[in-house]
Amino acid sequence: MSLGVAVIGTGVMGAEHARVLREETPGAHLVGVYDADAARARAAAAGTVVFPDPHSLIASDRVDAIVVSSPDATHATLSRTCIELGKPVLCEKPLASSAAEALTVVEAEIAHGRRLIQVGYMRRFDRGYQEMKRVREAGGIGQPVLLHNIHRNARAPEWFTGQMSITNSFVHEIDISRWLLGSEMTSVQIAAGPNEDPLMITMQTEKGEIVSTEIFMNATYGYHVHAELIGREGTVALGPPSFTITNRNGAGGVSYPENWVPRFQDAYRRQMSQWVKAASGGTATGASAWDGYVASAIAEQVTEALVSRRATTLNYGRRPAFYA
Amino acid sequence: MSLGVAVIGTGVMGAEHARVLREETPGAHLVGVYDADAARARAAAAGTVVFPDPHSLIASDRVDAIVVSSPDATHATLSRTCIELGKPVLCEKPLASSAAEALTVVEAEIAHGRRLIQVGYMRRFDRGYQEMKRVREAGGIGQPVLLHNIHRNARAPEWFTGQMSITNSFVHEIDISRWLLGSEMTSVQIAAGPNEDPLMITMQTEKGEIVSTEIFMNATYGYHVHAELIGREGTVALGPPSFTITNRNGAGGVSYPENWVPRFQDAYRRQMSQWVKAASGGTATGASAWDGYVASAIAEQVTEALVSRRATTLNYGRRPAFYA
Amino acid sequence: MSLGVAVIGTGVMGAEHARVLREETPGAHLVGVYDADAARARAAAAGTVVFPDPHSLIASDRVDAIVVSSPDATHATLSRTCIELGKPVLCEKPLASSAAEALTVVEAEIAHGRRLIQVGYMRRFDRGYQEMKRVREAGGIGQPVLLHNIHRNARAPEWFTGQMSITNSFVHEIDISRWLLGSEMTSVQIAAGPNEDPLMITMQTEKGEIVSTEIFMNATYGYHVHAELIGREGTVALGPPSFTITNRNGAGGVSYPENWVPRFQDAYRRQMSQWVKAASGGTATGASAWDGYVASAIAEQVTEALVSRRATTLNYGRRPAFYA
Amino acid sequence: MSLGVAVIGTGVMGAEHARVLREETPGAHLVGVYDADAARARAAAAGTVVFPDPHSLIASDRVDAIVVSSPDATHATLSRTCIELGKPVLCEKPLASSAAEALTVVEAEIAHGRRLIQVGYMRRFDRGYQEMKRVREAGGIGQPVLLHNIHRNARAPEWFTGQMSITNSFVHEIDISRWLLGSEMTSVQIAAGPNEDPLMITMQTEKGEIVSTEIFMNATYGYHVHAELIGREGTVALGPPSFTITNRNGAGGVSYPENWVPRFQDAYRRQMSQWVKAASGGTATGASAWDGYVASAIAEQVTEALVSRRATTLNYGRRPAFYA
Repeated sequence: MSLGVAVIGTGVMGAEHARVLREETPGAHLVGVYDADAARARAAAAGTVVFPDPHSLIASDRVDAIVVSSPDATHATLSRTCIELGKPVLCEKPLASSAAEALTVVEAEIAHGRRLIQVGYMRRFDRGYQEMKRVREAGGIGQPVLLHNIHRNARAPEWFTGQMSITNSFVHEIDISRWLLGSEMTSVQIAAGPNEDPLMITMQTEKGEIVSTEIFMNATYGYHVHAELIGREGTVALGPPSFTITNRNGAGGVSYPENWVPRFQDAYRRQMSQWVKAASGGTATGASAWDGYVASAIAEQVTEALVSRRATTLNYGRRPAFYA
Repeated sequence: MSLGVAVIGTGVMGAEHARVLREETPGAHLVGVYDADAARARAAAAGTVVFPDPHSLIASDRVDAIVVSSPDATHATLSRTCIELGKPVLCEKPLASSAAEALTVVEAEIAHGRRLIQVGYMRRFDRGYQEMKRVREAGGIGQPVLLHNIHRNARAPEWFTGQMSITNSFVHEIDISRWLLGSEMTSVQIAAGPNEDPLMITMQTEKGEIVSTEIFMNATYGYHVHAELIGREGTVALGPPSFTITNRNGAGGVSYPENWVPRFQDAYRRQMSQWVKAASGGTATGASAWDGYVASAIAEQVTEALVSRRATTLNYGRRPAFYA
Repeated sequence: MSLGVAVIGTGVMGAEHARVLREETPGAHLVGVYDADAARARAAAAGTVVFPDPHSLIASDRVDAIVVSSPDATHATLSRTCIELGKPVLCEKPLASSAAEALTVVEAEIAHGRRLIQVGYMRRFDRGYQEMKRVREAGGIGQPVLLHNIHRNARAPEWFTGQMSITNSFVHEIDISRWLLGSEMTSVQIAAGPNEDPLMITMQTEKGEIVSTEIFMNATYGYHVHAELIGREGTVALGPPSFTITNRNGAGGVSYPENWVPRFQDAYRRQMSQWVKAASGGTATGASAWDGYVASAIAEQVTEALVSRRATTLNYGRRPAFYA
Repeated sequence: MSLGVAVIGTGVMGAEHARVLREETPGAHLVGVYDADAARARAAAAGTVVFPDPHSLIASDRVDAIVVSSPDATHATLSRTCIELGKPVLCEKPLASSAAEALTVVEAEIAHGRRLIQVGYMRRFDRGYQEMKRVREAGGIGQPVLLHNIHRNARAPEWFTGQMSITNSFVHEIDISRWLLGSEMTSVQIAAGPNEDPLMITMQTEKGEIVSTEIFMNATYGYHVHAELIGREGTVALGPPSFTITNRNGAGGVSYPENWVPRFQDAYRRQMSQWVKAASGGTATGASAWDGYVASAIAEQVTEALVSRRATTLNYGRRPAFYA
């Protein structure tokens, strides 16, 4: 009755996923973990099994479903292995190293005939984004015309490039924008600051909606994600990012977290609970393999636009009926 | 390994507790329910057992722990029965119909020798209040000098009295103020508006801190709970009550819920998870039977101050070492 | 056509009044100033006349109207002298050293037969308070039931007493509360923190409205004045105290001024313009001598309540028809 | 000593300028007005002179300085006439019907040898924008990298085009962005929503700063202008647009004005006072004729980019030393 889940890759996110499974997820239990670093694996296992390799983990009879949080380059292969064995997967983003590779997962899943892959675009489970979507769908802002996203990291390593900003950070805005609007992107143009940080990336959708996104990897003051959706009858935006308001030293207001882990802690927990519920019930929720492919495909084409400094058409094919 | 929990009383809060147990609580499962209204019981049971009476529920071998959300008058008796059988209880507030009766639960628990009772003052599990306490304890506002609480309900029945405002609503501020400050109350004075709504209740603590609370049962615009803790070096307050900010019809801002259920939904969930964790581990968390007694004792004395319209000393004895 | 104005007393506020008259007040010009400190007077005069004493200033043919911002003890005598000569006065608060003395100004003005005295309760000219009053009068919050004021100074000298908090700071809340509500106060009770700072002062009006005020002279983090007016259909409160929102060092929000001068700079300017306009037109605006007397009378009785620590009835007579 | 000012054109803005001159501007008096509509002129004159034509107004000995708020097509010619007579001008934006024509005013002014023209980009006198600039100049946000502007009107006529959005509304962002950053614009790219409303206009400066602006003429919910300046060490943004916060009908927050007149009322007043002060002292402040030309030149080139839908280089020459 309780879903047996194992975690492949126990770095920062993987260890957190293992903890969430052990402590905060109803209907599931942690069977065990695998990590190339045995000590790290033992710590995250917290007394459960440490598997000797990913494949024995996936194949284990006690493992009903798998969380893939290993290095990005392994995501697609591991996901396909899980599909072969018919086991549900929660795969950290990105789904694959390239759009082409992501498509192999999509094809494997379609061939298998049932949705097994969920990509870890956790913002879909954030209460703020969910309320934004609910307000839009309820007609609370009329027809959407513009979505403005802000994605600020406190700081990035010196070697971080604009391309990395797109494939590491902007993919979140790609996914959440498609999800909030229910629209597909058709074009993009970019303005890049010095050293390609910040970027202002402006996409448009098939319906003519504008999706503008500020990506700033060295905002210094904290980790800050914001979004405002503007419609013909009003707007809806994410609320402030903290539970309290403080007055101190001549200033009053909110505080920002250092990074995405505390900011989206509740979204990660809810994502895990919903995935377990869906996996237990044989259904699917969250970002699909197709959504994972689209995020990667758009990111690749936006990267090309950054290099060419030209407005570019976005092409990534139509959603297969399988994912309707 | 999974804690078997049963719910006595499946009114609005009891049915919600049963749902949270079934869907959102790791480490526990709903064994069954009892309610005087059989149809209501069946609905809340959702396929689990409907017990014929509270005592068979409490005595059942499959029931490891009990949620008491039946009518207030039954809380103390049921809690004592659970204590006799050595089973942990999450009892909706109030713990008893009177301070004197609450004391019988305290005495029974002390006689039993182990903490088994948690009273459902769920605000202690609200992320905002928890952050306020954390900020205070970390020295973020210096020494506290004043706590101002606001407790506004959208509307109350016409027959609602000032006394009911105190015993139904203000008890939450009694408990959360003691918890936030770690202080005991020593006096109270009250100002009452027309028809005793609103009330402005001003208590002071043994340390001289002022705790002022506005209770307004007919605020009309929504359910709104707020608190600001003022210290010698700064203040910390609850953040705004909604996940999004909306602009519409000439106005922009937050939205308020209709009542406490959506406002404290996450606190109820966290309370249940923490209670299950503590009960499973043989420990205790949250508001104790002693805290439940103190809330009732203060509420009774504040009620007397409302009748007499005089500043009053508050007396409720010292916390037994058992609850240290 | 332009009103000739002179300023008696050129300390911090008087010098600021002289500057506002020279630079920001249409329809008036600064004729000159008097101050016991000749150097200070010359600086504030900025090239206009330095009068040798207050009486020659008041009596000067070129002086049409007088700003009294000399030491508190001189306010009443100087105001009465101006009344004798039939010249309009803007008198800094308080109007007199005692309620009894304030009453002598009221009586002199009534005897004179025309309103000549305006007391410098400048909050009445603050855009925020004005909007609060406008919203109330327009029915935007229904019938008022409670007004909660917050008055925080950054820091006070060590020798500052609770009594001084009342006569120096709380008088502002007395005046603005009467003005916002259009109600008279009938009772008061006080809770005092350690060293009488903070104070929580709770008054009630003839209509049963509650007026609660936090006075905190050592809030450390800045000068912060706030007010929320609660009615049966909604509430209206002052907006945040700064023109910009800043994100920096992990925090985001408003900034607070050091003291009341920057906070109420615009209110002081508007007060001066409106006073000049009224004085030029032979009419009156702002807080009257009667309002000045009432503020002093209530402050005295609140001080007594602080000493006796008892709930106290407030008595200050009925407004003479002259001030209707 | 008092500056004699006359107003040409007494439509909505001109009548407001005349009122501000009569009631709220120290150091100046309204001499009279001219308007093609005699009744409208008489109303705005409020008892002062109604001139028979603009030229007699400009030439009048009693007129020291002129406010030009007549139809746009007349601005440049009237401004040049004032320059010929050596009289200071506050000219409503735009300075001319085209960049080329604006340049004729610039040239006339340089030939005259003294700055006489101020263009009415009133946002430079808004307390919020001034504080943003002060914070930037004080190093409060480090080196700027991005400025995001939002300019929402409640509604526009059906025949309003994207080009009009640029020349009527976006010119304000052109001017304020140059002023806030102290930078010149070098390129632009545009994304246009359905019917060219909203527009997302992204410019870049010579220093690589990004200036993105949302222009939305039919935002419905109100008139809303916002700006956030992002630097390497923090950000500073305009505060909320209202003096009070209201809770009502399930929602709480700020209110928005219908249009720019109430929103920038204080900026208009301050602009007039500062202009009068500068004109009286023979100096200049605010947006110069050169700034007026640049705003028009950029607007024209942005309009071309809207038509061509291509990223475009912006060229408008270097600021003459005369305007340094």
